Amino acid sequence: MDLFDKINKNMGGPIGQHQKWSHGYFSFPHLEGEIHPHMMFKGKKHLVWSLNNYLGLANHPEVREADAQAAADYGMAYPMGARMMSGNTKHHEELEDGLAEFVGKEAAFLLNYGYQGMVSIIDALVDRNDVIIYDAESHACIVDGVRLHMGKRFVYKHNDMESFAKQLERAERMTRQTGGGILVITEGVFGMSGAQGKLTDIIALKDRYKFRLLVDDAHGFGTMGAKGSGTHEAQGCIDGVDLYFGTFAKSMAGIGAFIAADTEIINFLRYNMRSQTFAKALPMPMVIGLKKRFELLKSNPQLRENLWLIAKALQNGLVEQGFDIGVTDTMVTPVFLKGDLTEATSLTMELREKHGIFCSIVVYPVIPKGLIMLRLIPTAMHTLQDVQHTLDAFSDVSAKLTNGQYKINKLAVA
Amino acid sequence: MDLFDKINKNMGGPIGQHQKWSHGYFSFPHLEGEIHPHMMFKGKKHLVWSLNNYLGLANHPEVREADAQAAADYGMAYPMGARMMSGNTKHHEELEDGLAEFVGKEAAFLLNYGYQGMVSIIDALVDRNDVIIYDAESHACIVDGVRLHMGKRFVYKHNDMESFAKQLERAERMTRQTGGGILVITEGVFGMSGAQGKLTDIIALKDRYKFRLLVDDAHGFGTMGAKGSGTHEAQGCIDGVDLYFGTFAKSMAGIGAFIAADTEIINFLRYNMRSQTFAKALPMPMVIGLKKRFELLKSNPQLRENLWLIAKALQNGLVEQGFDIGVTDTMVTPVFLKGDLTEATSLTMELREKHGIFCSIVVYPVIPKGLIMLRLIPTAMHTLQDVQHTLDAFSDVSAKLTNGQYKINKLAVA
Repeated sequence: MDLFDKINKNMGGPIGQHQKWSHGYFSFPHLEGEIHPHMMFKGKKHLVWSLNNYLGLANHPEVREADAQAAADYGMAYPMGARMMSGNTKHHEELEDGLAEFVGKEAAFLLNYGYQGMVSIIDALVDRNDVIIYDAESHACIVDGVRLHMGKRFVYKHNDMESFAKQLERAERMTRQTGGGILVITEGVFGMSGAQGKLTDIIALKDRYKFRLLVDDAHGFGTMGAKGSGTHEAQGCIDGVDLYFGTFAKSMAGIGAFIAADTEIINFLRYNMRSQTFAKALPMPMVIGLKKRFELLKSNPQLRENLWLIAKALQNGLVEQGFDIGVTDTMVTPVFLKGDLTEATSLTMELREKHGIFCSIVVYPVIPKGLIMLRLIPTAMHTLQDVQHTLDAFSDVSAKLTNGQYKINKLAVA
Repeated sequence: MDLFDKINKNMGGPIGQHQKWSHGYFSFPHLEGEIHPHMMFKGKKHLVWSLNNYLGLANHPEVREADAQAAADYGMAYPMGARMMSGNTKHHEELEDGLAEFVGKEAAFLLNYGYQGMVSIIDALVDRNDVIIYDAESHACIVDGVRLHMGKRFVYKHNDMESFAKQLERAERMTRQTGGGILVITEGVFGMSGAQGKLTDIIALKDRYKFRLLVDDAHGFGTMGAKGSGTHEAQGCIDGVDLYFGTFAKSMAGIGAFIAADTEIINFLRYNMRSQTFAKALPMPMVIGLKKRFELLKSNPQLRENLWLIAKALQNGLVEQGFDIGVTDTMVTPVFLKGDLTEATSLTMELREKHGIFCSIVVYPVIPKGLIMLRLIPTAMHTLQDVQHTLDAFSDVSAKLTNGQYKINKLAVA
């Protein structure tokens, strides 16, 4: 049949099928004004809980100045090639050295984008004789990297150490036949649930099994641990993490990412990652801007302290009011409510229209049918007033949800 | 065995195995100073043929001003999320509308990076019942996208229409069983050889076979065709290309990319591309900077004319001197020489040290053993004097190569 006919029959896919009424409001919204807890949506000021700007660095005056100056000095085209060919600079290398030291590894390699970076890290590390074991709730970029693998891949139940040990056992049997190695992949902080990966427990099994551990700490870098080095610092297991992946899209308020490990492994990755060899380097204004962010991240622990103050106040307040925030033990704050799609959209509209609160909403098929998840991302720039306003609003809409007041389709009315 | 032991035994991989002597010189070199045909390498001015800055826009004063102003206005963090969640802006949408019109399609979707963009386009378009047919010399990002495909993939000999028709025949038999569709993927301009993809010939087969054609025109966008719309314009087959992919990393002197097609297909892609849904949007300073580049690309045909003047002068001069430039019929200019790795490195060193010419060198395993490929990328900013200097230098080193003077390892001497 015709490929396009098939796609058109698909009605836009699981999220896209709703685009006629959702586009521009629930999906692809325009948030306008400076990056800040208070931004404009549809011409009205909203309190925003949808920015991964954990430390508030996006709009820090020194960051803004560094970004502007670097773009004025170099332009957005610089450097004009892949790192290996014509795109290497001392700024890229200096940032790598600083990051490696900070996360407790010998060396680091900057990545032009986190998503394709992770895909190619996995792709470069394993061959068909190796086995990958990964957490069932791993981020899409990990899953896509694993999908490229020609050898066996075993998935374990999310954060379930019994399931993990079982897969290790299977992997060891398999690699005894193939002569390959074992790569374990999990996350430091799971971005949807806020649960930490059980790094310490995983590493404890290195006594019995031979494997290497790759941790995607996109959300944990800059937020977790006394120094903010990451979830491996927070859990006191820096050495047990063999490959540490951090992104610049969250705490560092930028784009790009890095991978840190032993020098020999990083040198190998530097020369064997397809998305880095065959695509342009991270732009210079971003790299110089990241150096400034990194300096502030290290020298301003109060930013991290404020993030945690806000996160704790928000989570404690929600729990006191009887809300279900799941298993989070980090700043990521999900709120689980019972309801269908009509109720989810009506509730979200009321949060926006009546209370001026903008947050992400997650429904089936990402979470089970009959559940609504609102995801709140606290930042260092939010205030305790913002938290109180949010608690009040949630209390209001939650009561209405329980009373069945959102069963009517508000969108049909609007 | 231990995964890292295995990697370390790998000696760094095909290119990385040479890093002890190649790093910083042949690989990961620092090119310093403004992006320009003349840049600094190891403290000395070099004539550079290694920048994909076809139209010279990287350093155009209006571009530099737009980049600087946009970074001052927004910072490099903006917008702080994926397009679908919290990263959509009117600038992203306006650029999409302009690009779609320019390349002759109904709609376009901006991609945060070309590499992961292409991977996810392919991934989103097909399911296990569909068949992919692709050119054997396709770029790494196409190959990685194809690798994600769970259904059949058939590769045809590079630009070989007999081989292509044979694979179409196979694919049609296959899809008659599965009920799936056929996706054909090729490039507008192959970046290594400079050959154009045979778009017109491929499209002619639509009379006999039902398939959709995706063209990666990374090198052709902005350079090919009377208006610079791309290789499909140059070959007069705009409508036959169902999905047109252009990157911003070449003519547009930036990062990111776009995909253009019918509105319904773009709407589907907008909601179903994993690397776009689960990763941050293209940064605002880049988007605004790209709008300026795009305006200049459209309004300054003399930039494209100058690119072609330089490319023709360079290629004609090389051919007149007896050099083998392969099958290029575009501005990409490969020069094939006979020699081994020692000769390749010695020759490249002499080009740099004696003649001050910096170009990329490609050896086995990318091309067959016993061949050396030097790749020259002309730009609108090069001059006819640059061309003459290069022809003289190539004449010098080519004579020495023929005389066997590069058999001695210059690196051991240096």
